[in-house]
Amino acid sequence: MSNRQDSGRPYHLECTGAAQETAKAHSNPENITLFGSCFCPFVQRVWVTLEHLGFDYKYYEVDPYKKPAELLELSPKGLVPALRLDGYNPPRALNESTVIMDFLLDLAASNTKRSSHTTESLFPLLSDPYARALIRLQSDTVNRSLVPAFYRYLQAQDEEKQIEGAKGFVEAIDGLVKLFERAEREGCTSYGLWHERGSLSYADVMAGPWIFRATNVLKHYRGFVLPEGARFRAYVDRLLNHPAFKRTCSTEQLYLDSYERYAFNRPNTSQVANAINAGTALP
Amino acid sequence: MSNRQDSGRPYHLECTGAAQETAKAHSNPENITLFGSCFCPFVQRVWVTLEHLGFDYKYYEVDPYKKPAELLELSPKGLVPALRLDGYNPPRALNESTVIMDFLLDLAASNTKRSSHTTESLFPLLSDPYARALIRLQSDTVNRSLVPAFYRYLQAQDEEKQIEGAKGFVEAIDGLVKLFERAEREGCTSYGLWHERGSLSYADVMAGPWIFRATNVLKHYRGFVLPEGARFRAYVDRLLNHPAFKRTCSTEQLYLDSYERYAFNRPNTSQVANAINAGTALP
Repeated sequence: MSNRQDSGRPYHLECTGAAQETAKAHSNPENITLFGSCFCPFVQRVWVTLEHLGFDYKYYEVDPYKKPAELLELSPKGLVPALRLDGYNPPRALNESTVIMDFLLDLAASNTKRSSHTTESLFPLLSDPYARALIRLQSDTVNRSLVPAFYRYLQAQDEEKQIEGAKGFVEAIDGLVKLFERAEREGCTSYGLWHERGSLSYADVMAGPWIFRATNVLKHYRGFVLPEGARFRAYVDRLLNHPAFKRTCSTEQLYLDSYERYAFNRPNTSQVANAINAGTALP
Repeated sequence: MSNRQDSGRPYHLECTGAAQETAKAHSNPENITLFGSCFCPFVQRVWVTLEHLGFDYKYYEVDPYKKPAELLELSPKGLVPALRLDGYNPPRALNESTVIMDFLLDLAASNTKRSSHTTESLFPLLSDPYARALIRLQSDTVNRSLVPAFYRYLQAQDEEKQIEGAKGFVEAIDGLVKLFERAEREGCTSYGLWHERGSLSYADVMAGPWIFRATNVLKHYRGFVLPEGARFRAYVDRLLNHPAFKRTCSTEQLYLDSYERYAFNRPNTSQVANAINAGTALP
């Protein structure tokens, strides 16, 4: 099933499928510009948030290995995701997927003139601070456990390391599921797709891009199969088919092509890849 | 200046100085119990937040190497800081310093019946989401850069690694200062002690315990001197002398004794120490 040789396939430079449609529909100037790369999961978090909260925004595709001047002006390192905010003079910028997500949530809560669509959030109401804390606890485990485990697994080259990587990734998923189960046990079910009637949560958006890439990239390059269990499978199904999430997904081939460099651990694949190789914290 | 041999000094089991007074003043049962250890910087974050926001709470000292049943019932790993919330039936629990801080901020914002003292926050108002995002960006750099750099430095045993550790720690401080300067340049000065008239911010509370330990533990065991510069020195002065921060500080000897195990990198010093030694993400 898995490819044994690096075919040297290049990463993609534009979205495909549903994501391409969404990018096209958001190609006009707006006060919010998202600088993103089509295969980047950190970008996808922000993109899903913009879609779900119903913001007007422009999607600006960036080649992360050849950063455009327009991005470098905002952010010296040229990292994506980046947000440019033209409502300020001079325009302002933000980096870091979690910081941008929090910003968008605050902006949505403070901004009654927000466009057309929805008045969605990703958190329970302030009147239930404990339920909000459980969502944050889940998000914390995604960032500190699930995300690094994904890259350790994908970048592992010898078989022993790959087995260890698979184990670590499954354990990380298991840790997240235990927190979902706890929230359910404690009656906090209004947010989180784990519960059949729960709304898309902050933690779902945090985890989604890597769970999605487990179903295509890890499946293809590592023969990975997601853990069994009807509850977990139903969760993944609800997550990957959530409208806001689906609108930011390209077709499978884009991910397979773009992640070959990770799967064969090519040098200088990304700052994330380098950090995993060096055993340091993710940038 | 620095000790060359591990004298085998034990860690402390109760607060001293101002922190001891504060612990005594919070020894009666309350709906919020903080399980903490006197020398733990992650606990100090939560403690400062409780003090600053003016909550009624009980401080419960825990020996982190011999966890009491009362804590293990709440949290199987017995990690501190932990919060027990007796307002729920059965009582609920929270872990992770950042999750607890966010919970307390939400609770303060939602709870008009909050006790006596203040109506403080650690963030600018929701009406300024960009200023809030800059505080979150600073906090992100504290957690992902400053905190791990502190432990890499303190646990480094040979001279070369210690020089590298010092350099990494100074770079992490510099990264934080650059974000403070950016906030000032962009006119976001209502929160953050970097600015003379700024209020104590979330990022200040995040960073404070490690900056404090740099002035005693790193100074003693590594001969470390904080970076020069009147602005930076004035910031540290405001931070360490902030009333809520000072009330959670023990006397210097407590930290010197309790951190000897880190400075000589004794085996199984803590989960944080093990993670630094293994080059993995902090627990």
